[in-house]
Amino acid sequence: MRDVAIVGVGSTQFGRAQWSLLKMMCEASHDAIVDAAIGERKIDAVYVANMGSVRTSRQAGLASALVDRLNLFPAAAEVVENGPASGASAVKHGVQAVASGMCDLVLVCGGERMNEVNAFDATETVSYLSHRYAEYVYGVTLPALAGMFARLYMDRHGVEPRHLAMVAIKNHANGARNRKAHLRIPVTMEGILTGPDAFMNNPPVAEPLRFFDCCPVSDGSSAVLLAPAALAAEFRPKPVLVAGIGQATDCQAVHERPDPTQLPAVRLAAEKAFAMAGIGPADIDVAELHDAFTILEIAESEEAGFFAPGEGAKALERGDTALGGRLPINPSGGLKARGHPVGNTGVSQVVELALQLRGEAGDYQVAGNPERGFALNFGGFGNNVVATVLKGGV
Amino acid sequence: MRDVAIVGVGSTQFGRAQWSLLKMMCEASHDAIVDAAIGERKIDAVYVANMGSVRTSRQAGLASALVDRLNLFPAAAEVVENGPASGASAVKHGVQAVASGMCDLVLVCGGERMNEVNAFDATETVSYLSHRYAEYVYGVTLPALAGMFARLYMDRHGVEPRHLAMVAIKNHANGARNRKAHLRIPVTMEGILTGPDAFMNNPPVAEPLRFFDCCPVSDGSSAVLLAPAALAAEFRPKPVLVAGIGQATDCQAVHERPDPTQLPAVRLAAEKAFAMAGIGPADIDVAELHDAFTILEIAESEEAGFFAPGEGAKALERGDTALGGRLPINPSGGLKARGHPVGNTGVSQVVELALQLRGEAGDYQVAGNPERGFALNFGGFGNNVVATVLKGGV
Repeated sequence: MRDVAIVGVGSTQFGRAQWSLLKMMCEASHDAIVDAAIGERKIDAVYVANMGSVRTSRQAGLASALVDRLNLFPAAAEVVENGPASGASAVKHGVQAVASGMCDLVLVCGGERMNEVNAFDATETVSYLSHRYAEYVYGVTLPALAGMFARLYMDRHGVEPRHLAMVAIKNHANGARNRKAHLRIPVTMEGILTGPDAFMNNPPVAEPLRFFDCCPVSDGSSAVLLAPAALAAEFRPKPVLVAGIGQATDCQAVHERPDPTQLPAVRLAAEKAFAMAGIGPADIDVAELHDAFTILEIAESEEAGFFAPGEGAKALERGDTALGGRLPINPSGGLKARGHPVGNTGVSQVVELALQLRGEAGDYQVAGNPERGFALNFGGFGNNVVATVLKGGV
Repeated sequence: MRDVAIVGVGSTQFGRAQWSLLKMMCEASHDAIVDAAIGERKIDAVYVANMGSVRTSRQAGLASALVDRLNLFPAAAEVVENGPASGASAVKHGVQAVASGMCDLVLVCGGERMNEVNAFDATETVSYLSHRYAEYVYGVTLPALAGMFARLYMDRHGVEPRHLAMVAIKNHANGARNRKAHLRIPVTMEGILTGPDAFMNNPPVAEPLRFFDCCPVSDGSSAVLLAPAALAAEFRPKPVLVAGIGQATDCQAVHERPDPTQLPAVRLAAEKAFAMAGIGPADIDVAELHDAFTILEIAESEEAGFFAPGEGAKALERGDTALGGRLPINPSGGLKARGHPVGNTGVSQVVELALQLRGEAGDYQVAGNPERGFALNFGGFGNNVVATVLKGGV
């Protein structure tokens, strides 16, 4: 098996797209190709991460269309779908293609245009990943599942609403430094929780989760170019090694899990990724976690092994996960502020980490030359999770 | 790179499903797992081939759901989409996962429930793979594209309506022998072309294509279990080697192609698959081609290298491609009679070939112990094509 490196990255502005889905994907892909300076080399395969375009954009075969628009004939092309973890899954498929020796250069592009439909239809489309007969038919949405999870988790671990608000405040502060973030609005504890207008500013969505506990409905596209690590030195930027990938599935219906406050697929995916990379959580310098809801950042930071069970909120409160902390989490702003174009998110996490490991994250660069990054992409409601470990300076 | 073998196959009845999409997929997957007799071995990954379930069945994350229903935790799981070539693409992704060494046992399951929506919506959903601004917005459908292609192709090569009817007659005759086929109705030249009721029996759909030139709108699921060839002897049935896979993309909008009567992606995909397998078209004993429309079987049989340009219809007329001919094409009945659950078709072609190479195709078994099979899965309107070469007796 060949080692695989990221030799180019690209990303659009996140937010409410002015352009079509395919045009966004062209922009991110083009940036990644230019970033890598591939010259006359041919791209062997194009993998697109997308969840809902067949419904929201009335488009199938997105990968074939991207090859067409970018004139990458006769590159192989497929869409990879794993709900909100489609992005990391597509990166994994790209890594497998290069590792197998069947491809050299693989472009992985995530893209989702959620705002092609209204916010209710976007929420409905995402709910298609819930259990059809145990959840979906009863009208459950992802915010509802996250709300029920939050209530149980907070009760068990003594997490308070102010901890949830702290995640939002931290990630909005980070996102304000990221010019490609969807939301660049700094928020304060007074504004969203304790002040006189807090209830109006931050109304309940699925209690105990409130408006600022939920990620926005975003459009956006990100892309990475993968190559055999042995060839990576031939390309322009500092290559970043995909050192480990771990994935795990779990019971689909949340209420059927033995302990619904635990996320065993997160734990197992992280363990596998760390084992493949030959390092542990203590070796990680920067992480991008899947904070589609604020409670998830806290829970994932524990399940991934960064903090003991019940210690995630305390670490957050101490500032350990802030941009200048011991382990910065979501320096990009995360899903909460950078945005969450669902099928794209896993690719954008990998792009953000690659920028950090290359020292090119600008105003939200983690200090001290981070060398090891960790991404967690959470599919379903935790029933299909992909963890990725990256190493810089290779 | 490790060689990869098919160690188990399974398939549902094709037709108008009585069961849900996931239940069909469980049935096919279960059959493949039982066929392989994997014992206590764990399946490492599940790849699902599907095109339209996010729209037609309101389901995303199908692969995670299949893992859940089959209790295959914590297997990795993704959906692979490449329009009507999703099936062969998913098999390719499975092969890459095993070849890379990242997985040992991979289940690839195709499934599509077209009849979850009415036939107009099914046709509309399939048309999402056309070029959004050059084709889709003008209302083009796949039958329309195939009709225009047929007119040009027939004019260029002297192909007559009776040749199209011969494809239908041959494949319906084959399908009548396949108990899992959707259409088991033998048809005659008099009944569909020359007789007094032919126009009523076989009305125009997109001239020159008529009703019996088009595949039905089918539901169905098929599955294969992949393993390293070096381990294949440990499983029950005779393993079949995935000897070659070739894929090629082409210009998306048909009218933009330099010569719209040519299908260069078919030629290139076949050439790549043969090169990887180290054999040529003359070495193939049985083929499953993508006869979504009768004209395509003729054109593909030439582009894939079995017959010279313009000779496909003559070979058909001589009976070379009949069940007892020199190169039987679509002994299963093909898309025309076995049926075409779009995202599933590529997996079902591989299943059919594996059965032929194992000598287990029953009433439609090709005589003479076929050892080498060829499948062609045609995505878009020929803008993303996957060819697969299988070898039996390994």
